[in-house]
Amino acid sequence: MTESDPLAQLARHRASIDNLDAILIHTLAERFKQTQAVGALKATYDLPPSDPGREERQIARLRQLATDAELNPDFAEKVLNFVIQEVIKHHHAARG
Amino acid sequence: MTESDPLAQLARHRASIDNLDAILIHTLAERFKQTQAVGALKATYDLPPSDPGREERQIARLRQLATDAELNPDFAEKVLNFVIQEVIKHHHAARG
Repeated sequence: MTESDPLAQLARHRASIDNLDAILIHTLAERFKQTQAVGALKATYDLPPSDPGREERQIARLRQLATDAELNPDFAEKVLNFVIQEVIKHHHAARG
Repeated sequence: MTESDPLAQLARHRASIDNLDAILIHTLAERFKQTQAVGALKATYDLPPSDPGREERQIARLRQLATDAELNPDFAEKVLNFVIQEVIKHHHAARG
């Protein structure tokens, strides 16, 4: 197994992808806990359910972070929007 | 600002969400670099473009990780599938 062995290189990249996917899952799990806490706070104290100004600032910041990390900002925004929409659906489902 | 101040609590949760979103973006950026490297390897060495067995194992593993982290495994699978599909689209777009 040498550096130039393509199957060994493939296996190394896949091992990294598996590690990165584990980070993604655990980060999503923690993010979901935080948004659940936000939902509970808003329900308890009758706070407004959404804050369009915040959402706009979040997206702008994430696009900048993506650009700095050499990730396509449209790709980043699409994935984050998908996560946000799925989180809303699942919170609604959890409330019944 | 006390523990019971709901707006202070909300601000703390939002700061955590912002940190977690930064982790998500940077992890996606690194994952994209890895899948780009895999694509280049496959093109150079004429390896098969997809490996359905691997994808099945990835999904099963991620569902288990999600369950262990108290994240809904269907939610986790949906998000990861979205990421995988978007990655494929963007790699195709990058190749032209």
